[in-house]
Amino acid sequence: MLDVAIIGGGPAGLTAGLYATRGGLKNVTMFEKGMPGGQIMNSSEIENYPGVSQVMSGMDLMASWPEQCQRFGLKHEMVNVEKVSRNKNGTFTIHKDDGSTEDALSVIVGTGSTPKRAGFKGEAEFFGKGVSTCATCDGFFYKNKEVTVIGGGDTALEEAVYLAGICSKVYLVHRREEFRAAPSTVERAKNTENIEFVLNSKPDEVFGDMMGVQGIKVATPEGIRQLDTTGVFIFVGNDVNNGVLKDENGNFICDVTEWGEVVVDLKMKTSVDGLFATGDMRLDAPKQVVVAAGDGATAAIGAISYVMEHK
Amino acid sequence: MLDVAIIGGGPAGLTAGLYATRGGLKNVTMFEKGMPGGQIMNSSEIENYPGVSQVMSGMDLMASWPEQCQRFGLKHEMVNVEKVSRNKNGTFTIHKDDGSTEDALSVIVGTGSTPKRAGFKGEAEFFGKGVSTCATCDGFFYKNKEVTVIGGGDTALEEAVYLAGICSKVYLVHRREEFRAAPSTVERAKNTENIEFVLNSKPDEVFGDMMGVQGIKVATPEGIRQLDTTGVFIFVGNDVNNGVLKDENGNFICDVTEWGEVVVDLKMKTSVDGLFATGDMRLDAPKQVVVAAGDGATAAIGAISYVMEHK
Repeated sequence: MLDVAIIGGGPAGLTAGLYATRGGLKNVTMFEKGMPGGQIMNSSEIENYPGVSQVMSGMDLMASWPEQCQRFGLKHEMVNVEKVSRNKNGTFTIHKDDGSTEDALSVIVGTGSTPKRAGFKGEAEFFGKGVSTCATCDGFFYKNKEVTVIGGGDTALEEAVYLAGICSKVYLVHRREEFRAAPSTVERAKNTENIEFVLNSKPDEVFGDMMGVQGIKVATPEGIRQLDTTGVFIFVGNDVNNGVLKDENGNFICDVTEWGEVVVDLKMKTSVDGLFATGDMRLDAPKQVVVAAGDGATAAIGAISYVMEHK
Repeated sequence: MLDVAIIGGGPAGLTAGLYATRGGLKNVTMFEKGMPGGQIMNSSEIENYPGVSQVMSGMDLMASWPEQCQRFGLKHEMVNVEKVSRNKNGTFTIHKDDGSTEDALSVIVGTGSTPKRAGFKGEAEFFGKGVSTCATCDGFFYKNKEVTVIGGGDTALEEAVYLAGICSKVYLVHRREEFRAAPSTVERAKNTENIEFVLNSKPDEVFGDMMGVQGIKVATPEGIRQLDTTGVFIFVGNDVNNGVLKDENGNFICDVTEWGEVVVDLKMKTSVDGLFATGDMRLDAPKQVVVAAGDGATAAIGAISYVMEHK
């Protein structure tokens, strides 16, 4: 029986492992099929993780984490978890994709979320080299430059306004005339001088060279229009990686929002005792490395207390 | 008019400054009379800030933060803030101890909390050299060793149980026979084998040498008893540094708990629009550098959105 099973090996899972083992728990396993580090590993530049002042790649930022977080006894099992189920006695069972299972007193989930792709030429090729899905992370790299935003929902319009505060101009490319975003958000975007709306239009191709994006071609009602922006931000939705929390009938074992984000309180507790959710998958996540790491620490402190009580 | 006024220069305030300025706000000032870095600067060893894998002093950990967090235009004003008041038009006024004031659209408070002293000989002298007020931070340094805990409230008993999971033995020194802690918490501590209760007893003197604490003398009903523990953890209460949020009648301008912690949601929003609270002063704070830093990032993202809407 594990004290704590940690599902996911990003900043949240790693930090949870550090705090849980350093806090005295002996049987703590982090389940992560890939290399630990999480989504930030795909980022070419990060400069807003406090305490790491050099600008570096996400891979370099995360390089020291596994050793640091595992030095107190955290085990890492390289396997995918398919499902977490809760047993009648309050313990949990971890169902792995190799068909085996493991029981745990407490579970910390941090499986992240995956931004949806818009599906145009060059999008994958230039991801992290000018194509971004995070304005807070990458907006500053386009200070006083022009950028393009793709999307028409709340996030797209909010992030367009955010980028308008940093960049000289924001082109907002949206495939319809109308917006799904809340009217007040649309209003705020429309009142922002340096946002130009490019409506009824679809991205056709992002192009560039070895240095990154040089521009984007957009199919407008008047024909192809070329926007020479070196930054292209895509906000067309987000898949929360919450599949491990679904039972065999497809129902979630804990409360989630209509968007699939796991509902937590300030202690990262879910609606189920002993189950914690952290990082990009939880309600109101700002999707930043430092916040995910903080979530992991918070959840581990709660899990230790839970385990000491129920052991 | 400031976009954001940040009160306090610890990990929360510094990170809030980094995110607010890097997020495009031009007028952001952090008010901190002392050297930025916060309470962790008094710590002799920290090894659980993810991404900084060497064990180092709190002062060394924080050394790079001010430059990193100020490189995007954060201003630092070396002055104490006495009070934050809210104006009828929704803006805030910062009242400084030099008598001057400054107006701000949004305020992020991160003034921390101060653990109370028990008041015995050697307590201040050996603080950070064996005397600690944080089990999560320092417990691991006493792995498989004996430690002493001072206090009889919920925190003291919870932390004693936490330490019992790491240390070989925990002496719990409490001045009374009865506990203020919740009965279930007392029960859990009593059921923990390696906790020895030393009741009706008061710490008299902690002693040691250049290397740190060597033991503590406790006044018991049977006379002075010497506990040869190199770690002494004090949990006799906590003063939340919330004075800046009191109006001239001593009433708080936002919701606080009966312990004085500022009530926030997952976005670090207080009950007052445009006012955010972060770090050790907020509800359910785990009092860890990485969590405070995460709070600062979260609050700044919220403040940017608030400022863009109200400017």
